[in-house]
Amino acid sequence: MTESPRSIARLSLYRRLLTEIQAEGSASVYSHELARRAGVSPAQVRRDIMTLGYSGTPNTGYQVEALTASIAAHIDPAEPQHLALVGVGNLGKALLQYFRGRQSKLHMAATFDTDPEKIGKTIAGCRCHPVAAITKVVLAENITVGILTVPAPHAQESADRLVQAGVSGLLNFAPAPIKVPDQVYVEHMDIAIRLETVAFFALRGRHSPRG
Amino acid sequence: MTESPRSIARLSLYRRLLTEIQAEGSASVYSHELARRAGVSPAQVRRDIMTLGYSGTPNTGYQVEALTASIAAHIDPAEPQHLALVGVGNLGKALLQYFRGRQSKLHMAATFDTDPEKIGKTIAGCRCHPVAAITKVVLAENITVGILTVPAPHAQESADRLVQAGVSGLLNFAPAPIKVPDQVYVEHMDIAIRLETVAFFALRGRHSPRG
Repeated sequence: MTESPRSIARLSLYRRLLTEIQAEGSASVYSHELARRAGVSPAQVRRDIMTLGYSGTPNTGYQVEALTASIAAHIDPAEPQHLALVGVGNLGKALLQYFRGRQSKLHMAATFDTDPEKIGKTIAGCRCHPVAAITKVVLAENITVGILTVPAPHAQESADRLVQAGVSGLLNFAPAPIKVPDQVYVEHMDIAIRLETVAFFALRGRHSPRG
Repeated sequence: MTESPRSIARLSLYRRLLTEIQAEGSASVYSHELARRAGVSPAQVRRDIMTLGYSGTPNTGYQVEALTASIAAHIDPAEPQHLALVGVGNLGKALLQYFRGRQSKLHMAATFDTDPEKIGKTIAGCRCHPVAAITKVVLAENITVGILTVPAPHAQESADRLVQAGVSGLLNFAPAPIKVPDQVYVEHMDIAIRLETVAFFALRGRHSPRG
């Protein structure tokens, strides 16, 4: 089975929508309803779900619980996966709060900062370590994913430390491109650039791309 | 000239990198150096910059100052463009801090929340209004871009209010798809879904897509 970042992101979105549908009291859902909520085509939903090896029954659609389990079996790690966040500034703290207490196989295991005021403290439920301890803590906690919320000048160095310690996925909020080895997966969340793009098209009345 | 969201995002990134290059004391830069820093191909850089009508001199590369001005003339609004943020929670506050004091033609003109503790206060330099006042304030302040940092159940309703008042671009951080008329441009910053995608590929050692 081939997988693209977009297909995984869609499965993740379907799962969230299925949770909503279940909370509304429905035990089943048609592909066109799931498609409508996800903002994609029904054909796309059917293709994505076919790759899971799950098939709905034509009369009642997909069983919400069974489909949710199929998606989880596909995208969730077998064991809880450990994350670290580097840079406990305003954005870093907001993300820690955001992730805190979420039902997820992803567990925030450590945070890192250079500020002596933060080091050694528990911030939003998570211990803050010195950046110099990245290698030790990443190994000890078996951390595979890093979130970068550091200022731009520290982004590459933070990424290097995490990757050298064995992190193989990065979510980069720092406003700076980072270079990593080919086997490391990076998603860039460059807020300022995305905002400039929105502002540009807001004045020009262009259509929003789907997906 | 045709423009895609990706091409505008690249121009925005080049401008930021040119600012860094200028701060390092260089007055000119070759396409391959700009490409290296941006993580794209030199051919891509040359194509993007050609669309601006700016051309470098073969011997010395692009003039940093002139190219920065060309990019600004293309992507910046003629007059300062006004933004509003809906949902002054942890993430909303972090974004307000992040944008505060940035040199930009984008000006945060208002924030909105439903919490009586926040309404009427100035938070991170910006006045917080009740959500019920969206229409009035958006019109009065000539706001064209909205940032959504509300909980998922309030995302669609907040988007509807902004769009009805005349906002034509949205940066959506709420973990929910939103429906808007075709002429409204939306970028989705779905942090939880992006994190799940990173975590998935972190365990599978897949390559990171470029761009």
